[in-house]
Amino acid sequence: MSVIKPSLAKGTRDFSPVEMVKRNFIYDTIKTVFKKYGYAEIQTPSFENLSTLTGKYGDEGDKLIFKILNSGEFLKDPKKKSFDFAEEDNSNKLISLISEKALRYDLTVPFARYVVMHQNDITLPFKRFQVQPVWRADRPQKGRYREFYQCDVDVVGSDSLLNEAEFILIYNEALGKLGLKDFSIKINNRKILSGIAEIIGKPDLIIDMTVAIDKLDKIGLDGVSKELLERGFTEQDLEKLRPVILLEGSNDEKLASLKEVLASSETGLKGIAEIEQVFGYVESLIAYSLPLTAKLELDITLARGLNYYTGCIFEVKTNEVAMGSIGGGGRYDDLTGMFGLKDLTGVGVSFGADRIYDVLEELNLFPAAAEVGTKVLISNFDAEAEKYALPILQQFRNAGIATELYPTSAKLKKQMAYADAKNIPYVILIGGDEMTSGELTLKDMQSGEQKKLTVLGILDLMK
Amino acid sequence: MSVIKPSLAKGTRDFSPVEMVKRNFIYDTIKTVFKKYGYAEIQTPSFENLSTLTGKYGDEGDKLIFKILNSGEFLKDPKKKSFDFAEEDNSNKLISLISEKALRYDLTVPFARYVVMHQNDITLPFKRFQVQPVWRADRPQKGRYREFYQCDVDVVGSDSLLNEAEFILIYNEALGKLGLKDFSIKINNRKILSGIAEIIGKPDLIIDMTVAIDKLDKIGLDGVSKELLERGFTEQDLEKLRPVILLEGSNDEKLASLKEVLASSETGLKGIAEIEQVFGYVESLIAYSLPLTAKLELDITLARGLNYYTGCIFEVKTNEVAMGSIGGGGRYDDLTGMFGLKDLTGVGVSFGADRIYDVLEELNLFPAAAEVGTKVLISNFDAEAEKYALPILQQFRNAGIATELYPTSAKLKKQMAYADAKNIPYVILIGGDEMTSGELTLKDMQSGEQKKLTVLGILDLMK
Repeated sequence: MSVIKPSLAKGTRDFSPVEMVKRNFIYDTIKTVFKKYGYAEIQTPSFENLSTLTGKYGDEGDKLIFKILNSGEFLKDPKKKSFDFAEEDNSNKLISLISEKALRYDLTVPFARYVVMHQNDITLPFKRFQVQPVWRADRPQKGRYREFYQCDVDVVGSDSLLNEAEFILIYNEALGKLGLKDFSIKINNRKILSGIAEIIGKPDLIIDMTVAIDKLDKIGLDGVSKELLERGFTEQDLEKLRPVILLEGSNDEKLASLKEVLASSETGLKGIAEIEQVFGYVESLIAYSLPLTAKLELDITLARGLNYYTGCIFEVKTNEVAMGSIGGGGRYDDLTGMFGLKDLTGVGVSFGADRIYDVLEELNLFPAAAEVGTKVLISNFDAEAEKYALPILQQFRNAGIATELYPTSAKLKKQMAYADAKNIPYVILIGGDEMTSGELTLKDMQSGEQKKLTVLGILDLMK
Repeated sequence: MSVIKPSLAKGTRDFSPVEMVKRNFIYDTIKTVFKKYGYAEIQTPSFENLSTLTGKYGDEGDKLIFKILNSGEFLKDPKKKSFDFAEEDNSNKLISLISEKALRYDLTVPFARYVVMHQNDITLPFKRFQVQPVWRADRPQKGRYREFYQCDVDVVGSDSLLNEAEFILIYNEALGKLGLKDFSIKINNRKILSGIAEIIGKPDLIIDMTVAIDKLDKIGLDGVSKELLERGFTEQDLEKLRPVILLEGSNDEKLASLKEVLASSETGLKGIAEIEQVFGYVESLIAYSLPLTAKLELDITLARGLNYYTGCIFEVKTNEVAMGSIGGGGRYDDLTGMFGLKDLTGVGVSFGADRIYDVLEELNLFPAAAEVGTKVLISNFDAEAEKYALPILQQFRNAGIATELYPTSAKLKKQMAYADAKNIPYVILIGGDEMTSGELTLKDMQSGEQKKLTVLGILDLMK
């Protein structure tokens, strides 16, 4: 067998022990909050039938789905006996002959399939979260990988706006527990955007309108105006749009202005009422507890997922680091129609765990505890000391303390280097003196301080 | 878009909330023990370059690797312009044109790649565990899936037999914590098997010999004898082999007999000495703590992974349920040679999590706590009661209790059915009386008992 210098597949990553501890800190924190709000975990398989995934993500999305070759001698009994590679659109034709499954592209379509397949076992409202990798054949670049985790939480079968309010609290609590101090939860409502398009008499141009005003941050009012004109709006329309785009003040002030502007749009007013009810729920929920850490901001330029979301829309950003959104989601009215189960409403949000990781790293917010694996290393200088150490080693473990005995006799320097490399905070040194007196030398690796203590003394100190 | 009745890809599974809680109970228990013994988690990508995986699992294994189609217009610039499907061995030729990556088949080869690629960042001994799914294009059948989790723990870069002893304690502790009461950890040593083949003068037939005697349980001594004769052994060889195959008694008695039989084989005696040292380590480790729950048994018919293992070999079985092995592993001398890093020794074991799941299910060993998601449901009968409940809901969550408010007003029966379906143990009923008095009705869903308590009273009771 020839030896190959190994490499990672393009766009994929290994996670080292230190990275895993940090990643688990993020997932565990978020999952704990999900559970407190009554959400339960499910998992779906890594690959699905191609027919389940195809046609759900648009033409561009379909191209990014990783297809899996049929297994075994998949060409032994082909429908064709030869294949012309030069033929037009040959890839797609060949795929249908040699592939019938694909890696999941997101967690939403598999969730929809899950709900439809298990509809008789599920009690609505069904509150689920799912934290699993997804795969996309994107061109890899900084911060964009071909395998990455999604972290989704959804409730289906309930149109109560309490759910929307609870997602605000979930973001607030989870991101707060991760250590973020200044972040914004932006909220908008598809119905408000529909109302705006309606009052300027261009309901069909809602997507064009929102695509343009979504860019306000980047290209300013002049840029937005120019783009709106290009996209079919008139100067007269702009007159009406401008005050809406430039809406300022507190959430209450914005809502008051919008009520005037949208007075003639039933849909628009419905959107305003929904936002008000969500804000009302949030206020009531936190009445006897801590105020929101998050800034909750009505932002009518927010327009993600408009071909999908039908009610409230969310986006979360940190204000401490320049970084795109670290979360988002919204209300949808037809999750499972693609699989024949109509009119199932739901609302869901997701956490961008990879970006959150980068934010915590940049702000140095990973707790020191998240770095510690093994807490105590016991030295091993010779066979006698090793034998002395063995029952002590197990005593520490029985006390729930992650402990290692250096597995062979070795020089002090080597063992210390091992403790350093693994970030082990305490080393117990056992030599002749220690074995005679029963008082072991405990070295604090951070301070360098050493003291003599009995086994029970050290166990006490660790608690 | 036509509507497709959705289905799972063949050989894959969804995991419901109840199943996830149970699966997590198993993984969390095992991981906690790994960490206590100084092992740290890593993860590797779901897919690897095909060149990393091919040729590592034998011809049969290679066929079971799921290959991923190159992405994009993967045939736009093919090396050939047409392809004859009827040509011999066409699948393999086509694969090389259209696929360059594949789903991981196990965790061992990716771990070897990891060690080689990160050899400059790793401090030896490197103690890692890894719990991730693997994929195999096997024909699905009861208990065999195309996607399943492996749960591996290995230390590389240390030849100390302390590691072997610690794996025995890891099995003992993890399986004990999962609730198993009667299970056996079988141990053997490749060198003992080599010694046996050596003393009967057939060292080259070691694999044939072990394959036959491994079947003792199933086909009895006569069956084994017959198979040995077919595989090239003589009646004279059988004379020598019989006492070894039928070795009985305590571990000490078996070791004493083996020492006589293998007196002339240096390798065989080395194997015996290794087993003795492992047993010695185990005894010293548990000197001041609990005795082993597991039965530790020297079993010289144990012969798994002989083309791979070079020292101790392990296999774990439960004695409470008829089930194949629920764990196994051993010492290897050349993990990373396939990637050009020679002579790296290591030892590792794995847990068969799917089988352990079935065992715990059959023995009814999943703790009741492993079933509980939401602990408290607050009823919702009308807008007034809902408003009253909102801050209480949040008070419970702030106390760390997983709590839900039924998201819309609904009849009692419907809300109770929801609590039942989700196995929620407590329901708080809030009606007019409760709002007036401030004493809420707490219903214990298991006993059916109801009592009136203040919010603080209920919070106290939950602690």
